[in-house]
Amino acid sequence: MDSLPPGSDPIDGQKPSEDCAVVGFKGRINAYEPIITALRTLQHRGQESAGMAVFDGRKTVLKKGRGLVTDVFNPATDSIKGKVGVGHTRYSTAGSKDVIDAGPFVINSQVGFISLSHNGEIVNADELKEEMKKEGVNFQSDSDTEVLLAELSRNISKYGLKKGFEVSMNTLRGAYACAVGINDRLFAMRDPNGIRPLIVGKNADGYIIASESCAIDALDGTIIRNVEPGEVVELTDDGLKTIALHEGEKTAHCMFEYVYFSRPDSTIDGINVYMARVKMGMMLAKESPVEADMVIPVPDSGRSQAIGFSMQSGIPYTEGLMKNRYSERTFIMPTQSDRKAAIRLKLNPVREVISGKRIVLVDDSIVRGNTMRFIVSMMRKYGAKEVHVRIGSPHIIAPCYFGVDMKTKDQFIARGKTDAEINSEIGADSLAFLSIDGLKEAIGLDENNLCLGCLTGTYPIDISKKLAEKITQY
Amino acid sequence: MDSLPPGSDPIDGQKPSEDCAVVGFKGRINAYEPIITALRTLQHRGQESAGMAVFDGRKTVLKKGRGLVTDVFNPATDSIKGKVGVGHTRYSTAGSKDVIDAGPFVINSQVGFISLSHNGEIVNADELKEEMKKEGVNFQSDSDTEVLLAELSRNISKYGLKKGFEVSMNTLRGAYACAVGINDRLFAMRDPNGIRPLIVGKNADGYIIASESCAIDALDGTIIRNVEPGEVVELTDDGLKTIALHEGEKTAHCMFEYVYFSRPDSTIDGINVYMARVKMGMMLAKESPVEADMVIPVPDSGRSQAIGFSMQSGIPYTEGLMKNRYSERTFIMPTQSDRKAAIRLKLNPVREVISGKRIVLVDDSIVRGNTMRFIVSMMRKYGAKEVHVRIGSPHIIAPCYFGVDMKTKDQFIARGKTDAEINSEIGADSLAFLSIDGLKEAIGLDENNLCLGCLTGTYPIDISKKLAEKITQY
Amino acid sequence: MDSLPPGSDPIDGQKPSEDCAVVGFKGRINAYEPIITALRTLQHRGQESAGMAVFDGRKTVLKKGRGLVTDVFNPATDSIKGKVGVGHTRYSTAGSKDVIDAGPFVINSQVGFISLSHNGEIVNADELKEEMKKEGVNFQSDSDTEVLLAELSRNISKYGLKKGFEVSMNTLRGAYACAVGINDRLFAMRDPNGIRPLIVGKNADGYIIASESCAIDALDGTIIRNVEPGEVVELTDDGLKTIALHEGEKTAHCMFEYVYFSRPDSTIDGINVYMARVKMGMMLAKESPVEADMVIPVPDSGRSQAIGFSMQSGIPYTEGLMKNRYSERTFIMPTQSDRKAAIRLKLNPVREVISGKRIVLVDDSIVRGNTMRFIVSMMRKYGAKEVHVRIGSPHIIAPCYFGVDMKTKDQFIARGKTDAEINSEIGADSLAFLSIDGLKEAIGLDENNLCLGCLTGTYPIDISKKLAEKITQY
Amino acid sequence: MDSLPPGSDPIDGQKPSEDCAVVGFKGRINAYEPIITALRTLQHRGQESAGMAVFDGRKTVLKKGRGLVTDVFNPATDSIKGKVGVGHTRYSTAGSKDVIDAGPFVINSQVGFISLSHNGEIVNADELKEEMKKEGVNFQSDSDTEVLLAELSRNISKYGLKKGFEVSMNTLRGAYACAVGINDRLFAMRDPNGIRPLIVGKNADGYIIASESCAIDALDGTIIRNVEPGEVVELTDDGLKTIALHEGEKTAHCMFEYVYFSRPDSTIDGINVYMARVKMGMMLAKESPVEADMVIPVPDSGRSQAIGFSMQSGIPYTEGLMKNRYSERTFIMPTQSDRKAAIRLKLNPVREVISGKRIVLVDDSIVRGNTMRFIVSMMRKYGAKEVHVRIGSPHIIAPCYFGVDMKTKDQFIARGKTDAEINSEIGADSLAFLSIDGLKEAIGLDENNLCLGCLTGTYPIDISKKLAEKITQY
Repeated sequence: MDSLPPGSDPIDGQKPSEDCAVVGFKGRINAYEPIITALRTLQHRGQESAGMAVFDGRKTVLKKGRGLVTDVFNPATDSIKGKVGVGHTRYSTAGSKDVIDAGPFVINSQVGFISLSHNGEIVNADELKEEMKKEGVNFQSDSDTEVLLAELSRNISKYGLKKGFEVSMNTLRGAYACAVGINDRLFAMRDPNGIRPLIVGKNADGYIIASESCAIDALDGTIIRNVEPGEVVELTDDGLKTIALHEGEKTAHCMFEYVYFSRPDSTIDGINVYMARVKMGMMLAKESPVEADMVIPVPDSGRSQAIGFSMQSGIPYTEGLMKNRYSERTFIMPTQSDRKAAIRLKLNPVREVISGKRIVLVDDSIVRGNTMRFIVSMMRKYGAKEVHVRIGSPHIIAPCYFGVDMKTKDQFIARGKTDAEINSEIGADSLAFLSIDGLKEAIGLDENNLCLGCLTGTYPIDISKKLAEKITQY
Repeated sequence: MDSLPPGSDPIDGQKPSEDCAVVGFKGRINAYEPIITALRTLQHRGQESAGMAVFDGRKTVLKKGRGLVTDVFNPATDSIKGKVGVGHTRYSTAGSKDVIDAGPFVINSQVGFISLSHNGEIVNADELKEEMKKEGVNFQSDSDTEVLLAELSRNISKYGLKKGFEVSMNTLRGAYACAVGINDRLFAMRDPNGIRPLIVGKNADGYIIASESCAIDALDGTIIRNVEPGEVVELTDDGLKTIALHEGEKTAHCMFEYVYFSRPDSTIDGINVYMARVKMGMMLAKESPVEADMVIPVPDSGRSQAIGFSMQSGIPYTEGLMKNRYSERTFIMPTQSDRKAAIRLKLNPVREVISGKRIVLVDDSIVRGNTMRFIVSMMRKYGAKEVHVRIGSPHIIAPCYFGVDMKTKDQFIARGKTDAEINSEIGADSLAFLSIDGLKEAIGLDENNLCLGCLTGTYPIDISKKLAEKITQY
Repeated sequence: MDSLPPGSDPIDGQKPSEDCAVVGFKGRINAYEPIITALRTLQHRGQESAGMAVFDGRKTVLKKGRGLVTDVFNPATDSIKGKVGVGHTRYSTAGSKDVIDAGPFVINSQVGFISLSHNGEIVNADELKEEMKKEGVNFQSDSDTEVLLAELSRNISKYGLKKGFEVSMNTLRGAYACAVGINDRLFAMRDPNGIRPLIVGKNADGYIIASESCAIDALDGTIIRNVEPGEVVELTDDGLKTIALHEGEKTAHCMFEYVYFSRPDSTIDGINVYMARVKMGMMLAKESPVEADMVIPVPDSGRSQAIGFSMQSGIPYTEGLMKNRYSERTFIMPTQSDRKAAIRLKLNPVREVISGKRIVLVDDSIVRGNTMRFIVSMMRKYGAKEVHVRIGSPHIIAPCYFGVDMKTKDQFIARGKTDAEINSEIGADSLAFLSIDGLKEAIGLDENNLCLGCLTGTYPIDISKKLAEKITQY
Repeated sequence: MDSLPPGSDPIDGQKPSEDCAVVGFKGRINAYEPIITALRTLQHRGQESAGMAVFDGRKTVLKKGRGLVTDVFNPATDSIKGKVGVGHTRYSTAGSKDVIDAGPFVINSQVGFISLSHNGEIVNADELKEEMKKEGVNFQSDSDTEVLLAELSRNISKYGLKKGFEVSMNTLRGAYACAVGINDRLFAMRDPNGIRPLIVGKNADGYIIASESCAIDALDGTIIRNVEPGEVVELTDDGLKTIALHEGEKTAHCMFEYVYFSRPDSTIDGINVYMARVKMGMMLAKESPVEADMVIPVPDSGRSQAIGFSMQSGIPYTEGLMKNRYSERTFIMPTQSDRKAAIRLKLNPVREVISGKRIVLVDDSIVRGNTMRFIVSMMRKYGAKEVHVRIGSPHIIAPCYFGVDMKTKDQFIARGKTDAEINSEIGADSLAFLSIDGLKEAIGLDENNLCLGCLTGTYPIDISKKLAEKITQY
């Protein structure tokens, strides 16, 4: 992927961004610490805001704010206490960047305090909101999470817990992987297509919900299982209990979780992310081989695919671009507001590695392509004899409606162009993308289990023309 | 009043505290600046949090936070823009101290964005909340303001603007002086008893709602008139328009606004506060004369009544206790966590003034009495020959249910005691309070126009036994 | 004095400003808390920065920063520990506003760690600095305090303690009231003219040095005595010991300490400040009587003199201008950057008091006069029939070279003008200042004991033409 | 190296820490921006404080503070302006962590404003300080940089520029790579042994001094040359000019710069760091081969050596430990104050990679070994069949006196033990270190050009017994 990560400098916000990490805990100890640890482990899924909501025995206490988990929370002064809670980090794809739109959301409803952490995007949020406003429900934010929460609340109030969840899964359209607290009870809910990941585990202290398995690892826990598409699970002191199950929809796991979003040490719906990426690199080397002296990744995003490319091709793997791990803070200087200076600070080629060599430069994906163009030109300036760009995933050509911040069609360098046309912008000696078939083989799932919407323009959920217009007009 | 002001050190939070200042603006210029100026002028009515909500033409933008107006807002970075808005400062009497409970509140409802700043206390908030939760309305905070707003919203949605306000004034019980924004329209609403003050004015830039007239002065404006008890007024570009009027209730202006809360330069319901306080001091001198050399106020709260006492008695007025104007910040030192050190830092007697003299020490009111006991002992230590304490208002013996933070009966030093018994705790040579009749004469209003609940235990609104129990059990 | 206090809004920095408060403590307990309390008590002498230096048994630890004492120090996190220390608050008159120029200063010298808090101004600092630089002494700041400290250090190193202090009092010219720590020893030093105040006291925990007696009061201590002009006193566990004494200079206490700078509850060189101010008001009433209905102070600065005026004249004292005690924070709004809006927020007349009345408006002093002009116009706008301005001190016509921030001649409204000419700028019905003779009588000291430099242009210390030019060219 | 990097959690401060980055700029544009960019590029050399000193045409303005470069500086509010300046980031090895001990230092001396950024450690700082204190020089901090600056200042004042530098290089003992500003002139100075790196370059805007070449890259500049051991170079508008040259000492570049401190994309004294590290890995594979399935680095520090090990051995390189890039912030949780939780959050094995495999685990160096022990146990828990630890540098057994924070002998796991004994603490299947000969061959320098003090206990500069005792008693 373009080498500037989500949550980094606004001046180079080139990457599509995952919206959220979702976390839940119910156990024998104060939920504050395990939620913090889980959120820090999932910080890569959202750096814009963080929050948690914990039921203290009488009411649900909420704390949320802008910034990293370590900016928002302070163990020395926080007084959040309770054994059940949900947590959230966010990179907004819907709603504003205000704290009021950050997660989790909490309401005091007819059935008690309901708290909700949500990852995904509700496609029909506006319609549901208008409908509920007519019924007298008020809204305080622009967030689709508040709509999701209000919808859950009204259905559970009206129909009881089980049917309330079921009705909600009928009315809500889109992607949603959620941790839900209702007073001292804790639930995990995943949309019928299973677009965003959601997993449950346990450790010595209690039960854990998380977007990715690495959070369960960080708590020294063991994985129980994935939450199934369309399933609502309750985590009780006696283990898991399926509360509701909405069946009959096509499974459609977001392929981008495997390509870029999730951490390599996570196992998402049974497939280890690192191994999938290595295989993407191997498939890429099979499909688009090239004679070269070195395989070099764009760090950190391209490293796994580059290792795979090297393994398959036998071309030695080395590191030839060094990344400044302090470069990601927002820091705008008066006269250096251009992207090039930001990339220059972030990535530096190693002349001694590159000079005179034929390089295969591997990244995980390309969206806009600006960064890659500049990297290729730097590689040449530092003496590379040839630069062959290999991208470990297919051409992105269509918007995402399910939680990834890729909305407008103009931003896709690959849309409607041949590889030669794309490469005329990138300036490499050759350019190749992994094929869709190669991607499926690397992941080990096919179009019956994956959402490939941004690669094909065909989505698992019907996107009304009206919504598509609204979104792409941004 | 006990000399430690509202919002000051937690270690000496001895004074009853007014909950809020209410402000509104609709005009030709950005509402941000006039709202800031009005709030800073009314900062004495609440130092715990501040906020404003401004309609920007499309939606209502809210900013609120903990601290003084100057802590929460920053003109260099705030980007709030719009010509209609409401503002609020708070010292909580209901709800928690969390920001989520601070004012104003805003909802996106069926009839548009409604914003609300509220001063007072809704007696039947819990019952209304339960009722609305059953209808599917959700709540995010503990604040009675959110209940008030939801009630307004459901009634206006159901019945239209005029009848919606009327119905709300029927269902809401308690004290409420409010500024209400509905999209780009601005309203002032005052409870049928007129317990808390509310006034409207205008300046060259537009129309102003404020809790006290001094805010209109600070904006170089002129007063139009008070909002009447039970009245809802709309402020339009063409002037005022009465939207609704709930008649038939007893007028019951809070006598404490005249005694202590309001600024002396404000005119509340037609009566100048400073003049009323001077007259309280004069009445007190008539009722409880004493031979002495000097009249000395407890600064700043007792100054006006002390001047009145001096005028009536002919005993020279002088200042003999100096107040450190930097002492009010919260700053807790490890070993000085007792109240005495805090008072010592705040007030210092002038030995040269006091020594060998017979002193009349005047304050506006006493609630708990701890501070006064210590001041009297300091006066003696600095050589005062006699110390006669004179209190410019009657004995406080009962809780307030309408927006003043005096809830428990045990906190009242004067409850169920004779003046001699009270003085045995204070340690003065003599002690006297203004009589209730004296108070009425000084203000120029009687029990038909004043709420004297905390002096008599008789309230203008029926307080259910259940509520009284709930409140006094804190 | 002009009604906008030191350290307040930059937009209305109209008042001359005292440079510093000086504090020292040596005792049985940690010096941190008593120094904090003393500094908070003396906060009025400087709000720009605060600091303390405490000897921890091995080295002297320094903490200083910008802002109020409560901004700079935090008992919850500060770890300063030691039984001897000095403290400082500053409003800069020499040097920049950088923290590096804030007090105290500490050096590790040949004779150990020397720490210094200084109030005053060294007239020949530049010459001494050049001389010491030639000897190899380096300087890190622009502050005259660093020069003073280096001079002390080189003389004590060369000549020993006693003679080192004596030589320094010979070479240093200007005003300096200092607390000096040398490792675990504590000294108070005052310039031979005794221009700035300095007093020592003790309480149950140890010995105290302070600029004003009120700091000793706040520590529940008793005054021992003033430090004499030209005296260096050591505070030991056995009491005071005079270390050095420079005699033969004219005593020249700054008259402005009595008029405005010091707190009314302080006793400065044996004279209580409040009583002196009341007498100034009485003398003023004798010298410049007027027929009127009310005496009204400009709060807070004019209150004491106004009470004196009322006592002498028999015209009733009342408060008719109300001050917003939250107005002093710096808070610049885009379109209200003019002084009028700032004064409007700060002071508000009480129409009911003023309207139709003949007013004597009393302030302690006038420097530039802008604020007074605006106040008079407000009084008229609110209906005052007549406004007679009476100033409780004489005409300020010349710069101060000894620690007060009045440097340029153009800033003095009274310089070279008759009272009628001055009043044509102020716009009152009449204007009068206290005479120099009246001031002397009120204080009880004469030109043999007072510095009247800013009133007469004649200074107790010879000001070289070069210096005078340098200073007045600012 | 132990996998917890400098500047990270205090609870796991296991790594030796470089003290500083040094930067200088003189050119046609404001020095502020290039200094910021260079400091951010060198942020890995010190995260504790940052600062810069810029000559504004009249005086040298200093700003420094605690934290990262992006914490200390704010382009929106900083007003530093001037064409010549020096910059610094620090991880303290001498002096305290107070800001007063942070770099750069500036003094106003007889020869003008001298500013100094320093990387290294002055062995005889205490003696020089005592000597200068006797001459009347005062010190304000504990930093050896202040001593270095004072020594330079007194020698230049006494002897002029050229001889002043020469004399200083005679009197100063230890490591010092410095950027020195004297008013508007800029100098680079490097100790006669050339222990710490220092390089000069230029770009379109001016001349640059930097600790490492990557800072010149980030400014789009070109390298001119290294500053020679014992050389003082002036950077003028016409290029470089050697001002002084102290010859005859043994060259002794710190080997740790190649092993760990410097960025892989830097070229230090002619040798590219990344290539040297790859060769270390290759030499290690030759010296200590092992049969295994995978080579896995401890990220990020062991990556280069692991790639070299893989290249030489033919064992496939892969990533099997994932690093949380958000884990480095200090954030202490009440019950997780143990190191294990911190490492758990920071590093997570990929079970799918490791399980059932024989692993070669490569890191750059080991000091204490605690982290490595825990990593090995995690690898086993995740199913590794065998874990063979290979360390890409020799055994560290002796303190560093020249700028690396390894002072006490007890902290070295390798001191006085056989590899078998060490491994009994680490718990691996086998353990091997690179030999000293292997290190020399990988770097391409030998004991005549390298400082190997921490590996051999033999230092290029005589360390007096007294100093050695003082340091190792910490």
